[in-house]
Amino acid sequence: MKKIAIAGAGAMGGRIGSQIKEAGYDVKLIDMWEEHVNTINEKGLEIQTETDTYTLEIPAVLPHQVNETFDLVIILTKSMQAKQMLRTLYDNKAINEDTALLSMMNGLGHGDRLSAIVPKTQIFLAVTMWTAGLRGPGQLLLEGQGSIEFQRADGQADERTERINQVFNDAKLNAKISDNVFKSIWSKATLNSVLNPLCTILDKTINEFSQYEKARDIVEPLIGEIVAVAEARGVSLSAAALLDKIEAAYPNEAQGLHYPSMHQDLYNGRYTEIDYLNGQIAKYGRELGIATPNNEMLTHLIHELEMKHVK
Amino acid sequence: MKKIAIAGAGAMGGRIGSQIKEAGYDVKLIDMWEEHVNTINEKGLEIQTETDTYTLEIPAVLPHQVNETFDLVIILTKSMQAKQMLRTLYDNKAINEDTALLSMMNGLGHGDRLSAIVPKTQIFLAVTMWTAGLRGPGQLLLEGQGSIEFQRADGQADERTERINQVFNDAKLNAKISDNVFKSIWSKATLNSVLNPLCTILDKTINEFSQYEKARDIVEPLIGEIVAVAEARGVSLSAAALLDKIEAAYPNEAQGLHYPSMHQDLYNGRYTEIDYLNGQIAKYGRELGIATPNNEMLTHLIHELEMKHVK
Repeated sequence: MKKIAIAGAGAMGGRIGSQIKEAGYDVKLIDMWEEHVNTINEKGLEIQTETDTYTLEIPAVLPHQVNETFDLVIILTKSMQAKQMLRTLYDNKAINEDTALLSMMNGLGHGDRLSAIVPKTQIFLAVTMWTAGLRGPGQLLLEGQGSIEFQRADGQADERTERINQVFNDAKLNAKISDNVFKSIWSKATLNSVLNPLCTILDKTINEFSQYEKARDIVEPLIGEIVAVAEARGVSLSAAALLDKIEAAYPNEAQGLHYPSMHQDLYNGRYTEIDYLNGQIAKYGRELGIATPNNEMLTHLIHELEMKHVK
Repeated sequence: MKKIAIAGAGAMGGRIGSQIKEAGYDVKLIDMWEEHVNTINEKGLEIQTETDTYTLEIPAVLPHQVNETFDLVIILTKSMQAKQMLRTLYDNKAINEDTALLSMMNGLGHGDRLSAIVPKTQIFLAVTMWTAGLRGPGQLLLEGQGSIEFQRADGQADERTERINQVFNDAKLNAKISDNVFKSIWSKATLNSVLNPLCTILDKTINEFSQYEKARDIVEPLIGEIVAVAEARGVSLSAAALLDKIEAAYPNEAQGLHYPSMHQDLYNGRYTEIDYLNGQIAKYGRELGIATPNNEMLTHLIHELEMKHVK
């Protein structure tokens, strides 16, 4: 694990990349946002933490500028940009048969999509609870604590898994090797598939959404559909535990004051990740013959709003 | 049919009431909006048509001021105000065992609710295709053509039905006695249950809604649920015909440029009629064991938005 690339170096990619760089690894940031890439190269990456602001020298490139092969590529683009990013990296020989591809993206189905490029033995799936913000091009905001869990996409352990874990833990990213990463991926996707589209459609914070006395009557059928689809795909989830997790986000002291990231995407004129959340659930449902009307409806409503808000 | 009251004399009540008054009947407008009632009594009802603007002298009262008994009470309040209005009229002896109560309100279930006050032999249900606008208190805007169909709530014909029909046709309201008014009520409610909440949630005109390439995938499941519930209640609807009717509203030359009335209600800070449309369908569905997830979801989303927009 000598040469590491962060493919998609926005807020989260910036956090993961800068922490690994600070642990002494050879890290390259790859991003499609030209102004961001240029600022990082000209001024360094400005990092603001709870206690400090400092500048980290770290190289950044546009995808088509990549001209080396990496041992590990951590994918943190938006879900809908991953395909284009990986195609460019593959064409530029940044990925070969020894490269580990690790997806840390939100949403469902990334393992299957990546397996069109490399075998599943080269693919790793991660879920992170870290957060991060971008205050502008080249300006990272890092607050709070988090964790990572990950596993090879075929569920098997190998020596490379251990080495990736070493990288993460050298970088103080609080990682662990999962024995059931799909459960964690689906759990996080459930939270995102409930609160993201609802708060976006309603233009409400998480707490504002929760104030409706029948909020649970909206949430439970969504969870029920997701649990049924996950079950049919061999992932066992607890509807009650997921409801608890979602409701734990409601208080203002928890996530209540926040708009989910999908809200920020839409109202800033960007496409959302709906097709990798509720849209993917509905797609699995159709394949499996499981009705997912609630997830279908939210997917359509978000697409309707994208037509209105995305420039 | 000597003494006729219009209970709820907004735009549509104003149209029906003024046309009957102009046909020579004794008509009283009853409305809860004090400024509207006062303006009508002080200045008359100002009526603007495509070709003319004139003033009609017509008496108006607040509900608690009613002190006479009517032969016919035409109910055109918002659905959620009907109960209070009728309770006040009943307490003031405006309604007795000879009074015909005719509901011309949008939405479902009005016949059953009215039957808590008078027997179904006294109840008439009407559907109108007339439209009307209110430009301000006491100021009516009457454009276009329309029609009315109506029937006694128990489906039986009687001599009073004929007399009400005579009143409507004297008033040039283009009425006919229906042999299946429930089919017409459910058909209109279906249109309203699809386009009203969707355009309101999305803050889109009917045409803007229709531009989404999968608009039909939103509309068809809603219609499917409504048709199933109606069928179980003995009302036979054609899903294909309803889809045609809805899609016929999309062009700008049809209804495309308009926001449905629910949109106007919500964004003007008023409660919507959702509980008498999708909410009533979902309620029937629960009673009948028919799943109506799409109608449930839209009902909840509108209630969430009411919490945000209603003052």
